[in-house]
Amino acid sequence: MFRWVFMFLNVVVGLLRHEPWKFLSAWFCPYAQRAWIALNHHKIPFEYIEALTLKLEPGQTLKDAKGYEKHELLLKHHPSGLVPTIVDADESMPAVYDSLVCVEFADDLAPCGKPLLPKDPVFRAEAKLWAAWADKNIASPFYSILVPKEQERRLEGYNKLRDGLRKFQATMKGDFFLGGDMSIVDIAALPWCYRTFTCSIIETYRGPDFTFDRQEFAPLLRWLDRCLALDSVKSTLPESAALVDTYKRYADGTAESKVGAAVRAGKAAHDHD
Amino acid sequence: MFRWVFMFLNVVVGLLRHEPWKFLSAWFCPYAQRAWIALNHHKIPFEYIEALTLKLEPGQTLKDAKGYEKHELLLKHHPSGLVPTIVDADESMPAVYDSLVCVEFADDLAPCGKPLLPKDPVFRAEAKLWAAWADKNIASPFYSILVPKEQERRLEGYNKLRDGLRKFQATMKGDFFLGGDMSIVDIAALPWCYRTFTCSIIETYRGPDFTFDRQEFAPLLRWLDRCLALDSVKSTLPESAALVDTYKRYADGTAESKVGAAVRAGKAAHDHD
Repeated sequence: MFRWVFMFLNVVVGLLRHEPWKFLSAWFCPYAQRAWIALNHHKIPFEYIEALTLKLEPGQTLKDAKGYEKHELLLKHHPSGLVPTIVDADESMPAVYDSLVCVEFADDLAPCGKPLLPKDPVFRAEAKLWAAWADKNIASPFYSILVPKEQERRLEGYNKLRDGLRKFQATMKGDFFLGGDMSIVDIAALPWCYRTFTCSIIETYRGPDFTFDRQEFAPLLRWLDRCLALDSVKSTLPESAALVDTYKRYADGTAESKVGAAVRAGKAAHDHD
Repeated sequence: MFRWVFMFLNVVVGLLRHEPWKFLSAWFCPYAQRAWIALNHHKIPFEYIEALTLKLEPGQTLKDAKGYEKHELLLKHHPSGLVPTIVDADESMPAVYDSLVCVEFADDLAPCGKPLLPKDPVFRAEAKLWAAWADKNIASPFYSILVPKEQERRLEGYNKLRDGLRKFQATMKGDFFLGGDMSIVDIAALPWCYRTFTCSIIETYRGPDFTFDRQEFAPLLRWLDRCLALDSVKSTLPESAALVDTYKRYADGTAESKVGAAVRAGKAAHDHD
């Protein structure tokens, strides 16, 4: 009973609340893209703040960028200054960060919206487990191909990503991973599939030994097309050529990011500090 | 509206459902203990199944155990055969695993119970972030002390655990981490605090250079006492001497577990395969 009253009040407060959330993001960051898609999906009002500015000397292009300037709000609200980070308009409540926590947070903010996680406890847990799986087996291996200098480690990353994509494709239950609608699992995998298949970032920097057979992955490409056609996704897609350029710093092993540092230290990208 | 009807049906189904969940656990496993406490907390009916049996030759004691036999249900329902794993009585639904996902699952099963995660979206996200923080900064460093053979790495783990415990103690908002009641954050940290302070496992195997000042940690010890006095926790506490013995395999670097293998490979315990 208490919970129902709470839910009701929550909805009312949500409707009355006009101030947008502050969404600290970066146009090129796939982790931030996850949170962005979820906020869009639920039409949650937010102010988009570009919180990582690639450092460029006069005359340099995106390809030359190594590190970035961090927005003061990001340094204030995230313990390590990472995007995505979401704070309330007054900055009076704790910050929300970690990309998959942000997706669940967006879902919690919109209890009457089309959910990104199933409501049934078992299927809800299943969705969380698959999202974490995609993080380990699709997002992280992407950096294990781009960051290491040794060909052997790059190929190991490539095999892991290919295996991950194969399992993702084979397990998909419908038009989207969990069935008929986009869920947290699609959002967990999508930004790296866009970078791999649409922008060809891995092939660009690692050459023909690192291609993904488009015939084998035809069902996955159809899923990708369905995702990219969604309004919630469209506005989060960086222009391909510019995005490719920003990955040069990863491919050169010079990216000054937590993820770059983790992979250079032999860890998985998701195990960054 | 739809959500309210769903919630109502969910509660009714929950009340009607008599078959207990199958809880695949291990008496000595701190990760399984997290799920166990959450199931107890919400009085969720479950059948406790001892799913990891330490392998002992005739005449051997717990100290001699290296690996374990895994229950066939565990091998069937968890992709890597890890506890905790929870399956429905009919084994007709997806399995629920990963200790913190299991805690959230128990909370979702009991929407009218005393919640282990706050209902407000921001504070709910905050609880998840602190639980993940405790996993990285309290649970994982415990193994970084016990598993490595090099004194330097052990001391690095010790410093990390001590820093983690200091921050945990300094951040605690009330009798429990988030305030007046036990939450997922307490549950995330508790099993390793019990092993460290109550059972003195680290001091036993690593000696006087690895002690924790009980005066400095007096507030944490009072929190630990409050946790250990809860009914939901009491029944999950293994007998101290037996528990100490089971850690010999970690301290000898011979533990045949995913966590042991991850730490020996230079990764954090939470980043096991």
